[in-house]
Amino acid sequence: VGLREEIGEQPAAIRRLLVEGREAIARAAAAIRAADVESVLVAARGTSDHAAIYAQYVLGARHRLPVGLATPSLVTLYGVEPAFRHMAVIGISQSGASPDVVAVLGAAHRQRVPTIAITNTRGSPLAESADHVIELHAGEERAVAATKTYTTELVAIALLSALLADDQEAASDVEALPAVVEAALEVESTARQLATERAGLDRCVVLGRGFEYATAREWALKMKELARVIADPYSAADFQHGPLALLEAGFPVLAVVPSGNAQDGLVELLGRLSAEFGVDLVTVTDRVGESRLGAATMQIPGGTPDWLTPVVSIVPCQLFAYHLARRKGEDPDAPRHIRKVTLTR
Amino acid sequence: VGLREEIGEQPAAIRRLLVEGREAIARAAAAIRAADVESVLVAARGTSDHAAIYAQYVLGARHRLPVGLATPSLVTLYGVEPAFRHMAVIGISQSGASPDVVAVLGAAHRQRVPTIAITNTRGSPLAESADHVIELHAGEERAVAATKTYTTELVAIALLSALLADDQEAASDVEALPAVVEAALEVESTARQLATERAGLDRCVVLGRGFEYATAREWALKMKELARVIADPYSAADFQHGPLALLEAGFPVLAVVPSGNAQDGLVELLGRLSAEFGVDLVTVTDRVGESRLGAATMQIPGGTPDWLTPVVSIVPCQLFAYHLARRKGEDPDAPRHIRKVTLTR
Repeated sequence: VGLREEIGEQPAAIRRLLVEGREAIARAAAAIRAADVESVLVAARGTSDHAAIYAQYVLGARHRLPVGLATPSLVTLYGVEPAFRHMAVIGISQSGASPDVVAVLGAAHRQRVPTIAITNTRGSPLAESADHVIELHAGEERAVAATKTYTTELVAIALLSALLADDQEAASDVEALPAVVEAALEVESTARQLATERAGLDRCVVLGRGFEYATAREWALKMKELARVIADPYSAADFQHGPLALLEAGFPVLAVVPSGNAQDGLVELLGRLSAEFGVDLVTVTDRVGESRLGAATMQIPGGTPDWLTPVVSIVPCQLFAYHLARRKGEDPDAPRHIRKVTLTR
Repeated sequence: VGLREEIGEQPAAIRRLLVEGREAIARAAAAIRAADVESVLVAARGTSDHAAIYAQYVLGARHRLPVGLATPSLVTLYGVEPAFRHMAVIGISQSGASPDVVAVLGAAHRQRVPTIAITNTRGSPLAESADHVIELHAGEERAVAATKTYTTELVAIALLSALLADDQEAASDVEALPAVVEAALEVESTARQLATERAGLDRCVVLGRGFEYATAREWALKMKELARVIADPYSAADFQHGPLALLEAGFPVLAVVPSGNAQDGLVELLGRLSAEFGVDLVTVTDRVGESRLGAATMQIPGGTPDWLTPVVSIVPCQLFAYHLARRKGEDPDAPRHIRKVTLTR
């Protein structure tokens, strides 16, 4: 079983989480509601850090909760525990083994604020250090690069949000995700073709905004890990502060731009980048016939609410990075130099 | 007056801030102390976002305050105001004009939590939207790429921390910074030589950890803006989750590694990167004779406390990016495509 199979397992993994994980997620939601939680801190590294960014937008947009991303080195390098008052602390790690993420949860636990672990590994140090454990039920992930543990992390956060608000409609939208992700997998032939045409790709920027900023970050990481592309992810806003200077004709720009008001500004920016600089634009979108996005589009199904689209929009990105890696002669199951479990302190 | 002159003006700009800005900083510190502040949110973009990261580490390490970085698009794109309870909100922007940063401050102001603007522009929209204004007194910054406004932003935050804790020793250490930055400017001939030897540099990773993560981020942005290098900044911890796959012999790795316990792990990692992969390592450090850092080092003065070192360590980075830009035939005073004031929403 390799990376490609694990990409394909995502609908089943999400379906399993929605059934087998639901009770644990409901208990975590109840704990947050019961405590006097005014803000949330999320500790995570690597791919899970992108799930943390998703949590930042979901809990911010849907619950008005300010969400901070932890700087674990304050605890591990400087020996300082933040004073967590009126906070809930969430740790995300597929392995549940990263000492720095565990250290943040441990500090929160000692201060008796609600702690939640989101992990694929029951009995892991992270699971043991938290009041509430949301197990991902993604099944063992063997490829070094995370795919199904990323999308199940997003779905765990999405269902947590739905149950936190006791929002039946939102919960139904979450339940619909396995079928939508299944449909998104059908983009594979397009993803393969676009990747094959770009065998020389060795650098790019990746743009996304709002909920899709997490997708841009995760796409960039997959490009680095799998296809050894130096990929620089940016929110469309920050991109205009400087990195714009990098552009020239043919410069590869990858962008995640599903439908939605929040994305209109990015579509406009991309149209300008194509017209003014002649960049090589590759997009993930459900917009059909949007000429400003050019021809190299990987289409995802429409109709998913914007806050859930990141679960779907990452799928073509995973497939694009996978096929580019193969085209470039890299082994997508075992990228150079990196290990599945990274024990950072 | 261009970028090079503005780099050289930094000691004078910091000195001016410490005199002319002190009262405003003391008032802001008093306001935070008087309010029941349990955490802080910082809103910023571009270079100022790196000052925000510095604030995250300084307020976290010295005051145990959890500090979050705002996601302004929640306000501007999704129309949702975070519920700011027991928080202080800081906006940082040299121009004070960025509508999204102003929007976050405006929301906080309406909710009557303490708001602080750190800006070089008196009377700017950001200044007008805050309870307390810390003016940078850096003088007009004409070059598109920010230098003296960045270091004065850091010093404003550092002095805010010293006064918040009523810590005389810390305040004295801050007062010493102009002379240390002056001494750091003497590295220029080395920076020029190292840059000139790397005229073909078009990609790199930039590593820093803890307080110096902000420096790594800002160095990477300067490399993009000025020298059109695709530069990927990483904390040493996140770097091991994936991007490590990019490395190969001769791959340029820039790193900021002053003395201090918190940096020992990074020095060890860099030694391993050199030994195993034969990367091309360029470092900023005060460690003399640390063989694991190789020969291409830009030396900064020693003796500055670790929490203040980022004010000093960025100086060789600015000079390296400036000389690389010149060597590559770019105009460091007016990088392609970007403007001094970027109005993102």
